[in-house]
Amino acid sequence: MEPDEVLTAYTGAFLDALASAGVGHIAFSPGSRSTPLILTAARRGSFRLWRHLDERSAGFFALGLAKALDEPVALLCSSGTAAANFYPAVIEAYYDRVPLVVLTADRPHELRDVGAPQAIDQVHLYGSHVKWFVDMPLPEGTDAAQAHARTVAFRAVAEAKKAPAGPVHLNFPFREPLLPAEHAPAPRDLVNVGAVAGPLRPAAGERTVSLLEGTRVLTEDELAPLADLLASYRRGLIICGPQRDPGLAGGVVRLARSLGFPVLADPLSGVRYGKHDRTWVIDAYDALLRDETFAAGHEPDVVVRFGAAPTSKALNLFLARCHRARHVVIDEGGGWRDPLHVAGYMVYADPVQTAHAWSAALPGDLRHADRSWGRAWIEANDIAKEAVQQEIASFDELFEGRIFPELAHVLPDGATLYVGNSMPVRDLDSFLPSSGATWRCLANRGANGIDGVVSSSLGVSASGAGPVVLVIGDLSFYHDLGGLLAAKTYGLDLTVVLVHNDGGGIFSFLPQAGVPEHFEDLFGTPHGLDFAPAVAMYGGSFTRVRTWDEFRRSVRRGLAEGGLHVVEVPTGREANVRMHRAVWQAVKRALAEGGAGYG
Amino acid sequence: MEPDEVLTAYTGAFLDALASAGVGHIAFSPGSRSTPLILTAARRGSFRLWRHLDERSAGFFALGLAKALDEPVALLCSSGTAAANFYPAVIEAYYDRVPLVVLTADRPHELRDVGAPQAIDQVHLYGSHVKWFVDMPLPEGTDAAQAHARTVAFRAVAEAKKAPAGPVHLNFPFREPLLPAEHAPAPRDLVNVGAVAGPLRPAAGERTVSLLEGTRVLTEDELAPLADLLASYRRGLIICGPQRDPGLAGGVVRLARSLGFPVLADPLSGVRYGKHDRTWVIDAYDALLRDETFAAGHEPDVVVRFGAAPTSKALNLFLARCHRARHVVIDEGGGWRDPLHVAGYMVYADPVQTAHAWSAALPGDLRHADRSWGRAWIEANDIAKEAVQQEIASFDELFEGRIFPELAHVLPDGATLYVGNSMPVRDLDSFLPSSGATWRCLANRGANGIDGVVSSSLGVSASGAGPVVLVIGDLSFYHDLGGLLAAKTYGLDLTVVLVHNDGGGIFSFLPQAGVPEHFEDLFGTPHGLDFAPAVAMYGGSFTRVRTWDEFRRSVRRGLAEGGLHVVEVPTGREANVRMHRAVWQAVKRALAEGGAGYG
Repeated sequence: MEPDEVLTAYTGAFLDALASAGVGHIAFSPGSRSTPLILTAARRGSFRLWRHLDERSAGFFALGLAKALDEPVALLCSSGTAAANFYPAVIEAYYDRVPLVVLTADRPHELRDVGAPQAIDQVHLYGSHVKWFVDMPLPEGTDAAQAHARTVAFRAVAEAKKAPAGPVHLNFPFREPLLPAEHAPAPRDLVNVGAVAGPLRPAAGERTVSLLEGTRVLTEDELAPLADLLASYRRGLIICGPQRDPGLAGGVVRLARSLGFPVLADPLSGVRYGKHDRTWVIDAYDALLRDETFAAGHEPDVVVRFGAAPTSKALNLFLARCHRARHVVIDEGGGWRDPLHVAGYMVYADPVQTAHAWSAALPGDLRHADRSWGRAWIEANDIAKEAVQQEIASFDELFEGRIFPELAHVLPDGATLYVGNSMPVRDLDSFLPSSGATWRCLANRGANGIDGVVSSSLGVSASGAGPVVLVIGDLSFYHDLGGLLAAKTYGLDLTVVLVHNDGGGIFSFLPQAGVPEHFEDLFGTPHGLDFAPAVAMYGGSFTRVRTWDEFRRSVRRGLAEGGLHVVEVPTGREANVRMHRAVWQAVKRALAEGGAGYG
Repeated sequence: MEPDEVLTAYTGAFLDALASAGVGHIAFSPGSRSTPLILTAARRGSFRLWRHLDERSAGFFALGLAKALDEPVALLCSSGTAAANFYPAVIEAYYDRVPLVVLTADRPHELRDVGAPQAIDQVHLYGSHVKWFVDMPLPEGTDAAQAHARTVAFRAVAEAKKAPAGPVHLNFPFREPLLPAEHAPAPRDLVNVGAVAGPLRPAAGERTVSLLEGTRVLTEDELAPLADLLASYRRGLIICGPQRDPGLAGGVVRLARSLGFPVLADPLSGVRYGKHDRTWVIDAYDALLRDETFAAGHEPDVVVRFGAAPTSKALNLFLARCHRARHVVIDEGGGWRDPLHVAGYMVYADPVQTAHAWSAALPGDLRHADRSWGRAWIEANDIAKEAVQQEIASFDELFEGRIFPELAHVLPDGATLYVGNSMPVRDLDSFLPSSGATWRCLANRGANGIDGVVSSSLGVSASGAGPVVLVIGDLSFYHDLGGLLAAKTYGLDLTVVLVHNDGGGIFSFLPQAGVPEHFEDLFGTPHGLDFAPAVAMYGGSFTRVRTWDEFRRSVRRGLAEGGLHVVEVPTGREANVRMHRAVWQAVKRALAEGGAGYG
């Protein structure tokens, strides 16, 4: 084989296996060294290719796409710092358990660590933030090399998918010339490597591997003490943190119904919104638990937790305070999601299966058959929600928290609401009530960064999964402004609600706000940017709204027209703190008046 | 001590030592976890603080600032992916040998790897791309802790500075509350740790460490064979690649004068421009060595190389072809800068000292006293330069290569010319002739990325080292567009020459251009962006020029007015290749006519 045919045969074997293993999308950034992979991928036609000029945006775009599809997405770039720009998205994927197959092209071994251009140390480039790393060999026209490339592709997908899902990294050195041939020679021209020719037949060519991944379930013996535990306490809580398995709602609802336990459902849990029975779903816990009287009167004896740590700080403080309760953490990924150090049981098993099996294993004579504990939570929850609603309706100014109940009026079924970190995700948690609408709420809650959020939401849009609305603050929007290029390049639909308070709004809630002489410089960090021109540059429409009426109209128009629309809600950081505090005060008053003091 | 006083005492001890060790600037990104360090730094007033909302830009800004100042600059961010965004700049600093002290705030140990928010594995986050890493302990009010913090600060600076200079990483876990006290108690209140109290006195408080870093020099015995080597060959070349020691020019010029050897001076070597004797400086080697006849006739017998691998591909191919020559590589950093695998001598010693000592050690009776070899290079160089000049003057269209000779008319003495990677640095090499002007040319040639270049040039501007002109392509400009925010925030002066050919111009020179059905999608990558609105958003002026006259006027105005100015030179990728090839053809013709065929 000629060198260019070797390239085609080798990268073709790898890419065919990757496609056969279920990877349908490659987000890539242009570069020379990656030519053998990207050109062969384009010629194969088995992948949808997404071009990004900034690798950081490419990484977060792939992340969003993989979350939306619930399947591994490939990421590809050239050698050098290009690959380092993937790092933030790789880390986010690792902690948020999103399957990514990261492919980096590299210089051949003779150009490593000898001062060659664009040659950095790409071996274990992402350190402990990938699940699997392979430094591939230089391409060869042997059966052995191609069998290996195919195996690595299948295994990379398997590693990325298996619980906990996450990123894997394959590093491909290529030597010049980098241009693959249009076609590789027929398989019979492949060169056998003597020693391994026997066992490797019929490996080259058309072999595929189907992955059968079992489900981790508890045995009856393991489940029995858990069932006894739940049966023996009247005051129990089920906490659903961020997670993306659509089956969890059904399992949790069944468990709650059996027990009469309230379900404190994070907006990112898939349990707060949807057509399932939401009788026991509590959505105003963030408001409730800020009230010391309520919190003191509603400490549980047993807590069952699904998903990642919940978003609400009030809830986390409450759970930490209840450290004497029996805490059960269910984590199918075998991690240790217990930042509060309260877990009494750490359960490594499939959450949905476990919830159903647990319900089935409960004894008939539950001590808490009277349901008064759960009803008290529901009653207080209703009072809090009513108070929140009335209070935010009373504000003359645009209140950041009101964005979410306003969106509830305009978000269609099947829409994805992507929210930025820092304030938007907290406001979502506090202010978007439970609903029967089939909304999917997503956020980058692996590492909770404000980076890459625009690109992540565009990745969801690219999945074709229905309308996407992104709610994002101005710092986060600035951080990934360039990510909007994908909307222009591919005509993607995205409606962005830009909460513009000219700086880091969250710091005004923190003790740092008490240091006025340095606050704005170090924490408030106003930038004075008017984003309208940049949005225009990326082909989007820009509307700055002054009323909620205008807001709803603008978002509706964005959703109806398609394409890129940015709806800016201008707010003030100090007023925002004041209004948030007024809301919590109103809830406190309402609870006191409503006599919600169940003990 | 109260916890907030511990914070102040501990971070104060560290930061005072850092300032005392010579760090005067901190580029930081806002965050909560880093509050103890940034607030104490602001209160101390010993540092110039540079705020960046995007950590990636912060990293490259610090890199540029450190290069301009030739001293370590600190970088600070909060925990999580914020720190990962520093990675591209850290890698560039590692390979370009730029001293950075990277400070990342981290969650305390009890929040690591337990699913806590913004908690990632920051231990060895930058892998093999930092020279030194310390995972700091939690702050303590003990003498031992403060003595340690001070020692780490001094040593971090020493490690960052010592050859080869580079980045170091210190990871600081902090537990809430994060707000340091305004003042720490007087030193006598510090708590001693019994076992080590003795030897640590008088460590806490005011101890400073002065670093005396020796210079690595060759002994006479080591130098003698090198001197004999140079003396024994008539046909020698001195190659000066990218490096930033201003003393090199003097040493190299002396060596060249003694030997009559041509000095092929990369524009980033500090040898091509300046007031030193440039008699033996060859600046048109990139054009000369594209001519096969010239290259074949001018193979050296001995090559002495200073600095990193040269920019010119023609020169590198020529050096590889001359693998039978005796190659001497001088690398004070103890690396292995020999991507061509041609080195016969690897010299770990200070380049400037070595050049001078070498000159002094040469015997009196040099075989090449006739100088005809060197004169032939100079003659051919003059012919090539003349041909280049005539040819580019004949183009009607705006030719990307002409940007540099045009800049030569307007760049004042003391100006810094920062150039982007990919095409600009190559065109600088090919088209900006040697000059007595005291220009400093800089580029990110550690890993040669197109990322972060805007921010790097703004870092140079922030150093106050004189006017800065950045020449950058549109992809690289897009990649770090957000970096312009620093110009707005701090009113920095920067004139940007934006070479806009709507895509990756370099690919049109590569074999990939021969695959028309995929070329634009995968490599050409047009984006259709008009940057004028974005530049306006960042407070800059924007001029798209149509003539060279307009170009010079616009750059002059930018330099005179200060602030941010973007001068766009719109070009076409295909025409650009055509014109480059016409230039090389013209040189070939001129050399043939001029009879430059010295053997």
